[in-house]
Amino acid sequence: MVPKLLTQRIAQEIDQELMSSSGGFAVEQLMELAGFSVAQAITKRYPKDSKRRVLVCCGPGNNGGDGLVAARHLFHFGYEPTIYYPKQPQKGLYQNLVKQCRNLTIPFADFDQVHASPFDVIVDALFGFSFKGEVRDPYKEVMQVKGHVGDDLDIPSGWDVEQGDINNVGLNPEMLVSLTAPKLCAKFFAGKYHYLGGRFVAPSFAQKYGLNLPEYPGTDQCVQL
Amino acid sequence: MVPKLLTQRIAQEIDQELMSSSGGFAVEQLMELAGFSVAQAITKRYPKDSKRRVLVCCGPGNNGGDGLVAARHLFHFGYEPTIYYPKQPQKGLYQNLVKQCRNLTIPFADFDQVHASPFDVIVDALFGFSFKGEVRDPYKEVMQVKGHVGDDLDIPSGWDVEQGDINNVGLNPEMLVSLTAPKLCAKFFAGKYHYLGGRFVAPSFAQKYGLNLPEYPGTDQCVQL
Repeated sequence: MVPKLLTQRIAQEIDQELMSSSGGFAVEQLMELAGFSVAQAITKRYPKDSKRRVLVCCGPGNNGGDGLVAARHLFHFGYEPTIYYPKQPQKGLYQNLVKQCRNLTIPFADFDQVHASPFDVIVDALFGFSFKGEVRDPYKEVMQVKGHVGDDLDIPSGWDVEQGDINNVGLNPEMLVSLTAPKLCAKFFAGKYHYLGGRFVAPSFAQKYGLNLPEYPGTDQCVQL
Repeated sequence: MVPKLLTQRIAQEIDQELMSSSGGFAVEQLMELAGFSVAQAITKRYPKDSKRRVLVCCGPGNNGGDGLVAARHLFHFGYEPTIYYPKQPQKGLYQNLVKQCRNLTIPFADFDQVHASPFDVIVDALFGFSFKGEVRDPYKEVMQVKGHVGDDLDIPSGWDVEQGDINNVGLNPEMLVSLTAPKLCAKFFAGKYHYLGGRFVAPSFAQKYGLNLPEYPGTDQCVQL
């Protein structure tokens, strides 16, 4: 079963519908399930015994929020996450996610600390499907220094959601975790592992958008594509 | 490792602190994780091949909300949940959880339908640790008809949170899923399976309250006690 690849417009429409009165989801719920699915996918390919040190790079929007949730679950799974979150929005949603991570004593590192530290896995939660344009600092520099291994949330940051790396950002991750459904740019993904997260889509909803989603195994919140 | 059994006062204090500005959790997050842990625990003891038909009885408070989340995840895991939710609060939180279940076409049954239908597992999400007093209709009748098998959320409904079944409600479930930490009444639990859910407690928090929580295996959100 090959899932449909979404355009940016449809991805945004689906996201809005899930959180509308007809979908009924709170952003906190969807973020919790998305972040959990990413953390779980990481455990499947990067076991904590050899890949314990995880850097989670978080952008200023929902993709970054998913990253904060993933970092929290990774901590509970026995990893040693570090968070790079250079622009922290004042919105309560994000402040609360930060608080939860701080309560776990997960370190928030600045660029120099990130630059100087070795990590086994880099999680790119900088930008998601809403991103347009060019990547600028402080995000660009961290991608240049740390950007060539690891795991991307939904789309590799800086890629065009439909056309892939047209801005020559150069992120070619080993793993991609698509959320809800893969986006068009996934056809340019050349890494080893492509997972899907977001086991909350109603069958009627998947049918309406022709998503053609695969079955998830057991109680897993992620499935390999 | 034997977890501490909580008094009602401490259970309420912990709940409040998790959702305060110092804990930083949204009720939607905690409910999502609690409901997920209950659904996952059910899969471990009641496989869907033989125990597919699950009745989830939901009360008017947070315990009922956890039940609605559990029903949703059970649906995604391949079960056939039915929800009994005789008093549905107008609050957006609960209305949204109902909407999510309705979008999955999970049936909401009335008492006569519940009475007449066979179920393999009954999930009791009627009352949690805040409950005091006597169980009244419409909850009492469903417990009398359907109350003697299945799985209870946090505490068996109608039990005193510290002293157990002092009101002779008569619920003696086969399985109990304690949430965050078991309550004092768990020492009167005589069923086969006791699980703990709520893999979100910070170590510093567990230490402050002396919770003595066990380790969770893998990425599981529940652990057998």
